[in-house]
Amino acid sequence: MAGNPERRAALVDAGTEVLARSGARGLTFRAVDAEAGVPVGTASNYFTDRDDLLRQIDARMHTRLAPDPEVLAGLMAAPKDRTLVTALMRDLMGRVTRDRTGYLALLELRLEATRRPGLRASFTESVRAELEYGMDFHRRAGLPGGDETVAVLYLAMLGLILEHLTLPGVLEGVLPGTGVPDGLVERLVTTIVPER
Amino acid sequence: MAGNPERRAALVDAGTEVLARSGARGLTFRAVDAEAGVPVGTASNYFTDRDDLLRQIDARMHTRLAPDPEVLAGLMAAPKDRTLVTALMRDLMGRVTRDRTGYLALLELRLEATRRPGLRASFTESVRAELEYGMDFHRRAGLPGGDETVAVLYLAMLGLILEHLTLPGVLEGVLPGTGVPDGLVERLVTTIVPER
Repeated sequence: MAGNPERRAALVDAGTEVLARSGARGLTFRAVDAEAGVPVGTASNYFTDRDDLLRQIDARMHTRLAPDPEVLAGLMAAPKDRTLVTALMRDLMGRVTRDRTGYLALLELRLEATRRPGLRASFTESVRAELEYGMDFHRRAGLPGGDETVAVLYLAMLGLILEHLTLPGVLEGVLPGTGVPDGLVERLVTTIVPER
Repeated sequence: MAGNPERRAALVDAGTEVLARSGARGLTFRAVDAEAGVPVGTASNYFTDRDDLLRQIDARMHTRLAPDPEVLAGLMAAPKDRTLVTALMRDLMGRVTRDRTGYLALLELRLEATRRPGLRASFTESVRAELEYGMDFHRRAGLPGGDETVAVLYLAMLGLILEHLTLPGVLEGVLPGTGVPDGLVERLVTTIVPER
């Protein structure tokens, strides 16, 4: 396995682009090489096989889509109430829409996971760890509501992100006076998270 | 265009299978012919192009995934309360898990819609019509909550369906004592829909 970490990251990012643009079926080592602008055969020096590439795309997305530590610290200085939960969910929505390609690649990975048991196992583990981290974060911060609240909010945000990234027109103006996505994020939080 | 409606339906169902199994990139007229067990060239007599086939898959899924009118009538005989909303959402979940292939094909269609403006326009229209129908149904039946409630519940169910069909292990046991998906459906409704 070749070891240049910058080149590896560039290849994984190229794989993410290919995945979002062409779907899992279009994700070949050759397409990754072409997207990254490197000689044919390079990707095969960095990944043992396609499953390995898919796993590394998953791992890299956790970094690319993670909150900015400074932004997060700034947000967490506020009182631990529902308004703060709204701000945290807006930050999540902002990261997802800014890295639209990355999140669409994760949706492609989900569908590919229905076909590949190995990918399903590793991807399940990383998504589950994220959900449990969210529950733990919410509890430790003393935000309103319990694990149940976080689970329901997580599912509603997942639905909102899927809808907004794939068919944004569905939600546009469906609740008059509620902007998409920010107004809708606020409605989700107000409906799901208890006031205190 | 060839006119045999049964053969058309069989070809659309074959296209749905191919879409769920191989993704949008695998959906060719030739793959549809092979899946349906008909001579090569048959699909091209029934669909003007790939966009036409994708639109017809969308239209057919609305029928395949629709509630059974008798089951629905039976459910609607109950008092118009939160328990009834739970029963309706469980019925939706049941339809989706029974026709897993059909729903996975719709998720593939969503991702393909990010690449094809024509498909995005027609698919947006059909999903929006369904959401508005749901709001109207809820209102006319006198179920608790308003359009806002239906919108939030719709997004949470969309998230739950996506998670349960693609990475079911993420939710398994995440809330102790809450079965997946039925127990989680109940939690969503209890959290989102007002008691009266």
